[in-house]
Amino acid sequence: MLSHLKNYNIILGSRSPRRQELLSGLNIEFETAIIDVEETYPREIVGVDIPMYLAEKKANAYAKKLDENDLLITADTIVWLEGKVYNKPKDKAEATNMLKNLSGKTHQVITGVSISTKHKRKTFHVISEVRFARLTSQEIDFYLENYSPYDKAGAYGVQEWIGYIGVEFIEGSYFNVMGLPVQRLYTELKRWDK
Amino acid sequence: MLSHLKNYNIILGSRSPRRQELLSGLNIEFETAIIDVEETYPREIVGVDIPMYLAEKKANAYAKKLDENDLLITADTIVWLEGKVYNKPKDKAEATNMLKNLSGKTHQVITGVSISTKHKRKTFHVISEVRFARLTSQEIDFYLENYSPYDKAGAYGVQEWIGYIGVEFIEGSYFNVMGLPVQRLYTELKRWDK
Repeated sequence: MLSHLKNYNIILGSRSPRRQELLSGLNIEFETAIIDVEETYPREIVGVDIPMYLAEKKANAYAKKLDENDLLITADTIVWLEGKVYNKPKDKAEATNMLKNLSGKTHQVITGVSISTKHKRKTFHVISEVRFARLTSQEIDFYLENYSPYDKAGAYGVQEWIGYIGVEFIEGSYFNVMGLPVQRLYTELKRWDK
Repeated sequence: MLSHLKNYNIILGSRSPRRQELLSGLNIEFETAIIDVEETYPREIVGVDIPMYLAEKKANAYAKKLDENDLLITADTIVWLEGKVYNKPKDKAEATNMLKNLSGKTHQVITGVSISTKHKRKTFHVISEVRFARLTSQEIDFYLENYSPYDKAGAYGVQEWIGYIGVEFIEGSYFNVMGLPVQRLYTELKRWDK
């Protein structure tokens, strides 16, 4: 599958182990690159445009290094609730607060993805809706003490205990909630250069 | 969490490695039991009643062995499309046919779950909707030759390559599609004996 891309050197520009695992699941060979950018964006950008902007910012930071046969994939995931972005929490207090706000409500998880070669770029986004059950303070504490919310937008990993006990309902792609919308990415790669 | 169940010996009556992995994700201790029943049901039973009937059939087969402190969990998952059940495929021809039928359509994955102690039983079901993209013959062949569809209802594992490239959309619980609706199960266990 995706044999039309066999002359490309596919590079995943992400240090996230979840994204690496998800891209591996597409059964394609790739290498990873660490791209350091400040995850900041202009104040006037909202909603889906935030992760698309950040995915492109990461692609731009790597653009000069792109060789003729390189195909770079960058991505950014945000949690969006009631007009506010939930990023990676700085400390336990912020993580607690985020999970209390997500509890009993439906939020959006939005991933922006950029596919870039030296001569072409395609950026898109995928939205998944996630409904959390009401979480008790004990459940939030137990999660924060036993798992690692600090590298995750919205302070939770859907594939961890909190996702098992807390996520009542998803509308859209589960893998997008994990950090990479692999079905849509596969479709875009299938169409690439056709 | 679930400390009110600490005097129970929890038993998962399923040989499915996915169900064992999913129940482990709830962070509870349990053992597994292999329950052999013929997965047949009366002709007049349809839809959600099929996996509920089969979950209870499995529970009944183990009932005599239940000790005072045992809590048994049994489950059955079916794929339901256009008024027909898709079970585990017998051979490659049947698996190919199932995936061709699921391609480009939305089907339901329904899991029936029974929780049983010596004196009480609760049976429930959870439905997830799954929309498949159009799959090419090459994609179906590639999946059937490289993965293991024969122990899976509907001839696919959502957590395998075919789920990555093929599942466009889920409405409901992703873990239910894998074989066990862990969030609902956790909620039922939280309420148990209260």
